[in-house]
Amino acid sequence: RINGDRLWDSLMEMAKIGPGVAGGNNRQTLTDADGEGRALFQKWCEEAGCSMGVDTMGNMFATRPGTDPDALPVYVGSHLDTQPTGGKYDGVLGVLGGLEIVRSLNDLGIRTKHPIVVTNWTNEEGTRFAPAMLASGVFAGVHDQDWAYAREDHEGKKFGDELKRIGWVGDEEVGARKMHAMFELHIEQGPILEAEGKDIGVVTHGQGLSWTQVTVTGKESHTGSTPMPMRKNAGLGMARILDAVDRIALSHAPHAVGAAGHIEVFPNSRNVIPGTAVFTVDFRSPELSVIEDMEARLRSEAQEICTAMGLGVEFEKVGGFDPVEFDAGCVSAVRAAAERLGYSHMNLISGAGHDACWINRVAPTAMVMCPCVDGLSHNEAEEISKDWAVAGADVLMHAVVETAEI
Amino acid sequence: RINGDRLWDSLMEMAKIGPGVAGGNNRQTLTDADGEGRALFQKWCEEAGCSMGVDTMGNMFATRPGTDPDALPVYVGSHLDTQPTGGKYDGVLGVLGGLEIVRSLNDLGIRTKHPIVVTNWTNEEGTRFAPAMLASGVFAGVHDQDWAYAREDHEGKKFGDELKRIGWVGDEEVGARKMHAMFELHIEQGPILEAEGKDIGVVTHGQGLSWTQVTVTGKESHTGSTPMPMRKNAGLGMARILDAVDRIALSHAPHAVGAAGHIEVFPNSRNVIPGTAVFTVDFRSPELSVIEDMEARLRSEAQEICTAMGLGVEFEKVGGFDPVEFDAGCVSAVRAAAERLGYSHMNLISGAGHDACWINRVAPTAMVMCPCVDGLSHNEAEEISKDWAVAGADVLMHAVVETAEI
Ligand SMILES: NC(=O)NCCC(=O)O
Ligand SMILES: NC(=O)NCCC(=O)O
Repeated sequence: RINGDRLWDSLMEMAKIGPGVAGGNNRQTLTDADGEGRALFQKWCEEAGCSMGVDTMGNMFATRPGTDPDALPVYVGSHLDTQPTGGKYDGVLGVLGGLEIVRSLNDLGIRTKHPIVVTNWTNEEGTRFAPAMLASGVFAGVHDQDWAYAREDHEGKKFGDELKRIGWVGDEEVGARKMHAMFELHIEQGPILEAEGKDIGVVTHGQGLSWTQVTVTGKESHTGSTPMPMRKNAGLGMARILDAVDRIALSHAPHAVGAAGHIEVFPNSRNVIPGTAVFTVDFRSPELSVIEDMEARLRSEAQEICTAMGLGVEFEKVGGFDPVEFDAGCVSAVRAAAERLGYSHMNLISGAGHDACWINRVAPTAMVMCPCVDGLSHNEAEEISKDWAVAGADVLMHAVVETAEI
Repeated sequence: RINGDRLWDSLMEMAKIGPGVAGGNNRQTLTDADGEGRALFQKWCEEAGCSMGVDTMGNMFATRPGTDPDALPVYVGSHLDTQPTGGKYDGVLGVLGGLEIVRSLNDLGIRTKHPIVVTNWTNEEGTRFAPAMLASGVFAGVHDQDWAYAREDHEGKKFGDELKRIGWVGDEEVGARKMHAMFELHIEQGPILEAEGKDIGVVTHGQGLSWTQVTVTGKESHTGSTPMPMRKNAGLGMARILDAVDRIALSHAPHAVGAAGHIEVFPNSRNVIPGTAVFTVDFRSPELSVIEDMEARLRSEAQEICTAMGLGVEFEKVGGFDPVEFDAGCVSAVRAAAERLGYSHMNLISGAGHDACWINRVAPTAMVMCPCVDGLSHNEAEEISKDWAVAGADVLMHAVVETAEI
């Protein structure tokens, strides 16, 4: 069993870096706060006897050596970056849960055949730089590093420049590491485990995601003196498309969700009809065909809405991944660990995307989930109980150690 | 007749200050560029023999003395501030048209009985600091100066602090000046004059305005893992209200317009259901009862939409003025001037708000309008012909001189 107090204290310590405005965190990727969080994690890893490697995407790999020099490592981790108004556990629990495994094995004097590598993946959240899970995606060969470096935040700052600025461009070639397996512990971010009264989610699948950035083009003009029939109101076109997004997702209920979190109009002046509206539609489903249908309907319905209003519309896919089926062996290891430890459990489909979804393409991968209060995440009020965290980290440890072999 | 080349050259010279990105201007109120524009205007006024007074709201008054020391001045002017993506003529034509009157009278050696005061009103546009026409509103006693000083821009900077920063807090008590009359020349910003082939709009009325800032409150949560029925999507609530705004305005067509130019969601992250949406609804009509009806329906329909979606909603009136009927004598002076000069003309209701709308409460006031291409304004592509500008300034001069008496 892991040391629950130590895990919890570390979570609280990390949460002091990049505090939010309402009890949570704003430790967005490649900010100074992210750099500070990384340094603390590195310090803790070194204190636990690990050596730190960093790749050219800033992904961090803390290695606890194994007994067999030829055995590939078992990876365990998640991400330390947060949403702008994020919680203290989303991602962090998975990284510090991995560190707690190493600390506990040290306490118990247990060596594993395979090395264990605790990982912090860069820019999982995707708020500053779309898409989400950017650096695990480059690691898995899904994205090109040059393309990733060129991603821009809201102010036009590039990912590559910001990574350099905070001093976390490593020297390892990204994706060069080979993995025996990878496990990720994460809070569910949804309501199912809590509602079902289960301690542990055995994540068998991850639903797929599609991010489409929509740009509606109208004509800036005066809100007072432009007659209604002459208006080309890009904001109104956007509003109608947002309503269509909801209808499209609901037509596939309960197998799909859809919404837009990112919404902007230009020039954003009270007495100017918006000439341009830019927003990103987030569609998800465990079924690829459903995602494809929603994407196609978004494009055709938005086009229809805009044509009727004399507006232009363009679409750019700015992120996405197909639904994922995790590795049967790793999933079994998670389920067996929960059984062995006597935690109640159930199979889950992850509603959110995770680094594990990309890594699953290059290594046998699975995820452990623990409940979170009211299923609330991407909110500073995100909350979990210490018991839930401990159960998740216990199961994580047992699945990892079984796979890494004593 | 005024000197058209000189007027045009001054317009082009002023347009060099605070250039936009597409041929227009970004010379928003109380920015450094606004300060530069003010300094150039002051220099020109002094070169034309005027003395400059500045009040505590930064309103500028360039006086050409009259022959009768007891006669109240005739005021003429508009505003030099622009939208963030504004045109070169909106406001500027009215200020520099006023200056051109002084220059032309100097050329012709004509003295008037009443002094003529060319005015630049601070923060007409209202983009940085709502409401629009802020400083003429304080002058007219509609707003309190302390309240005006406390208006905040998007970054939380206060009007009073910014006015001080650019060095344009004058020593005159705002509103202390008494006026014999006030005239404002402005581009129409709408399509009617061009469509009707008229040189001059004799502005008899101004339509009223209501700005309501709407705040919709939902709950930030994950776009992937939050089930559709659990969402409280403030962005979707906003979208439905924006559609209602359009319907409400159209139900009064052609006697009303409505739209939202200012739209924001928080935390504005692609994978976070918006927890808050803030936007400003701009309703206008020449009929007060229509504005009141639209305001009431906005509140009730938005409340209904939000209640049905489990969202909160709050309303704040952040600007507005009642429909205006300009002074019959001043309006006649404008019409007579157009007749005398042989310019084609028609009566107009101003679709936009103007400083003249507030000043009309404290002095006999009227407006002259000239066409603008495609009725386009609040757009960098705003355009007028030199002939139109000259006609407008000619009529302005004749109306002013007739009222100021030779
Ligand atoms: N777990 C998580 O919130 N990841 C961010 C990517 C996503 O939007 O699913
Ligand atoms: N003339 C003008 O554009 N004034 C700004 C105030 C308004 O929105 O009408």
